[in-house]
Amino acid sequence: MTQSHIMTAYDEELRFLSRRIAEMGGMAEQMAADAVRALVNADAALAQRVISDDAILDAAEREITDKAILTIARRQPVANDLREIMGSIRIASDLERVGDLGKNTAKRVIAVQQSGVPRALARGMEHLSELALAQLKDVLDVYTTRSAEKAQSIRDRDEEIDAMYTSLFRELLTYMMEDPRNITSCTHLLFCAKNIERIGDHATNIAETIYYMTTGTQPDGERPKDDNTATMTVQG
Amino acid sequence: MTQSHIMTAYDEELRFLSRRIAEMGGMAEQMAADAVRALVNADAALAQRVISDDAILDAAEREITDKAILTIARRQPVANDLREIMGSIRIASDLERVGDLGKNTAKRVIAVQQSGVPRALARGMEHLSELALAQLKDVLDVYTTRSAEKAQSIRDRDEEIDAMYTSLFRELLTYMMEDPRNITSCTHLLFCAKNIERIGDHATNIAETIYYMTTGTQPDGERPKDDNTATMTVQG
Repeated sequence: MTQSHIMTAYDEELRFLSRRIAEMGGMAEQMAADAVRALVNADAALAQRVISDDAILDAAEREITDKAILTIARRQPVANDLREIMGSIRIASDLERVGDLGKNTAKRVIAVQQSGVPRALARGMEHLSELALAQLKDVLDVYTTRSAEKAQSIRDRDEEIDAMYTSLFRELLTYMMEDPRNITSCTHLLFCAKNIERIGDHATNIAETIYYMTTGTQPDGERPKDDNTATMTVQG
Repeated sequence: MTQSHIMTAYDEELRFLSRRIAEMGGMAEQMAADAVRALVNADAALAQRVISDDAILDAAEREITDKAILTIARRQPVANDLREIMGSIRIASDLERVGDLGKNTAKRVIAVQQSGVPRALARGMEHLSELALAQLKDVLDVYTTRSAEKAQSIRDRDEEIDAMYTSLFRELLTYMMEDPRNITSCTHLLFCAKNIERIGDHATNIAETIYYMTTGTQPDGERPKDDNTATMTVQG
């Protein structure tokens, strides 16, 4: 009786972690989407909301980590359960970073809105963000189903985002060269694009963590951890 | 007798984690320093070495994390020891990111060396890197002494790095506006400067982790988590 009572309380602790991670994920996703929307529409009020929402995500990460450590200390889990709890900490940290990247993007809205975002660049930015957010959304779905197979396939999909980011990077440099008045806003857009590309990386990290939580092993094969723009030059 | 034998093996596991973290720290520091040296001196061979060394750091992080989880499962530590082990995982993750940032900086050496780094910018970049690496070095020293007081004071020192980064950011934009031929290389230098500023952030993260490991509480007061350049505009 007592044993079953303890197990139930323990299960509830694990369920608490899963639920809070899912909530954090939904919020991080929303913040990242809103940040890009604020950027494209020069919506300073929406940007401000994203900036203040970040504190909620920071608090959520801290709560999940504290609770996870408490659960480990109290329940002394092994094998699957231990991996599950360690995975929660890791995923919460990735989601907190997604929130930071959304916040940093939102902060740039004011610097960018003075000159506005050219239509073609806005489309590119939206497209990049759609890819990264689809990646994040899918990985959060996989988190609820715990499919190692799907986690592996999401992890392999990061290349599309990198290709889109590379093309946007090139386009932004070209705009800067065409007219020096574009330099300040395009610099901020470069950092925004990099932020969005990084969100894709965090989705990939989460996919790897889920794979590890589910199987106890690391996923197969190297993954591209860096974008391809680091060596790129564009002639003026 | 058996108990004392077990304790010794356990202590050895903890010491193993500390030693590996210290080694990772030294290596991450070296990579970051070499990356900036390669950038300033257009040293492609040194850059290449930084890029390939990153795999060693990735493997070290994985090893520390695996060993830490194994130790938790085997020893079921509580309180101080549990915080110590959880802290190792967190610090290893920050150091792995420092290595990534060094690698990303090194990758940009080739793109930048075509036009070279103007002397004034090279000085600025070196100065920023000295500040960030001093921060990292100090935090690694605090890791061996476990002084919560020193950890708190390092955490409060991040502002100097942010101020230096802000001034470098402004200077880079000005160079780009003066001559469109500077745009490609200055864009890469902007990302390099941002990488170095992020190394300072990771040093701050590590200081917070050490504070938590030592005291069981979070350090006092908010810390500036973002740089000040996000809202900056420079008129051409």
